Amino acid sequence: MIPWKEVAIVGGYGRMGRFFARVLSRDGFHVTICGRRLERARRVARRLGVSYGEVDSSVRGADLVIVSVPIDATYDVCMSVAKEMERGSTIVEIASVKTGIADRLRSDLPRHVRFVSAHPLFGPTVRGLRGRNVVIIKGGDEEATRRLRLYLESKGASVSLLTVDEHDRAMATVQVLHHYALLSFSYVLQNELRRRPKLADLLTESLRLTLRSVKRVLDNLDAVLEIQERNPYAGEARREFVKAIAGSLEQG
Amino acid sequence: MIPWKEVAIVGGYGRMGRFFARVLSRDGFHVTICGRRLERARRVARRLGVSYGEVDSSVRGADLVIVSVPIDATYDVCMSVAKEMERGSTIVEIASVKTGIADRLRSDLPRHVRFVSAHPLFGPTVRGLRGRNVVIIKGGDEEATRRLRLYLESKGASVSLLTVDEHDRAMATVQVLHHYALLSFSYVLQNELRRRPKLADLLTESLRLTLRSVKRVLDNLDAVLEIQERNPYAGEARREFVKAIAGSLEQG
Repeated sequence: MIPWKEVAIVGGYGRMGRFFARVLSRDGFHVTICGRRLERARRVARRLGVSYGEVDSSVRGADLVIVSVPIDATYDVCMSVAKEMERGSTIVEIASVKTGIADRLRSDLPRHVRFVSAHPLFGPTVRGLRGRNVVIIKGGDEEATRRLRLYLESKGASVSLLTVDEHDRAMATVQVLHHYALLSFSYVLQNELRRRPKLADLLTESLRLTLRSVKRVLDNLDAVLEIQERNPYAGEARREFVKAIAGSLEQG
Repeated sequence: MIPWKEVAIVGGYGRMGRFFARVLSRDGFHVTICGRRLERARRVARRLGVSYGEVDSSVRGADLVIVSVPIDATYDVCMSVAKEMERGSTIVEIASVKTGIADRLRSDLPRHVRFVSAHPLFGPTVRGLRGRNVVIIKGGDEEATRRLRLYLESKGASVSLLTVDEHDRAMATVQVLHHYALLSFSYVLQNELRRRPKLADLLTESLRLTLRSVKRVLDNLDAVLEIQERNPYAGEARREFVKAIAGSLEQG
């Protein structure tokens, strides 16, 4: 079941973009990657065995456009590429924060495109969609939402439908709190390692496992910091964390 | 190279005890496990293909005794089994905190046994010694220390020699801080999951990886709490962590 045929991925040479290019082309979609850096798109496209092109021509020829760019650029890029898209084609943005992006796009995008806001709850290092969680934001185009959901579920992903606010509240825990706890730990650990370099020979296996989590966060630091800044419940999540552990300190 | 022949593991039916029973018997040592619970020793011994016995008779027949019991019991068990041990035989304790244990044992144990304090920096779920870090505390019996170190290094482990104080300072970071950060995060996450059970469907892959680290800590909670209580630098490590993240909160 292929709900779309011609897919353009804006930012398709980025890490998440490459993930979708791989998965979708393996699945029989014709994928074109594009973005501001044509030479980079060319190199990545050759490696992945997909097409590449200028942004405008790529999205003009597509019935599905995936916008996979930094959170801060998502609104503007969507507004700009939508103008070039054909009537009835679908645009999907996948930013990790939805307030100020999905809600504004829903009202601001031209009516000739079908808009869906989604958030894949995994990074680009996973192999495929099986067993992965994906959020689709309620209130997007009904037909495009139905198709996207069926496609994802047919690949074994688990789809949750949430409002913009429900999404950002949930991600304040799942992403903001999680990243903040790991980064805080990493910060104190790195300070200790600088003061006492011998510590590096004294890592437990359990700490090595946690450092793999820390590395994932650091590998993705730009996005992590954008989430910390833009999720409207981020400050609250960080404060709750500090309060909880400061409280435990007083008791113990 | 087998530096000892007859090994008795006190607490050998516990998780770390079973790890050493497996590794050492696979390596050609004759292993006897013992402890206060004879029936449990019998069952575990049968499963592992090793011997079992009463504590006193087992340690009497051994040229190496490994004491693998909870931190709080380590000093007393060592003192009590040493009395039964043969002249020139070796006793090794593996507690995760050394202040108040290794230092006291070094002065209090009868002179007819050779004492070594070690700390394997891994849990019982690892497969073998290759690539693992082990601390040996300075100031133990020289000959037994040399033998233990050679044996561990011949198995591919990496051995660090530290004083009691160096060990506990290092473990305040590697264990206390690490466990405290994970438990604090887990505490706030579990609260959120109780308030909003839907969150369980919204875990990212990166959070799932971190939850594996959390699970390791929770699987080993008794030992983790003993370390939090008994490591003399634990309070300082927890305070540094809270201060660091509370500071970052004010700035951000």
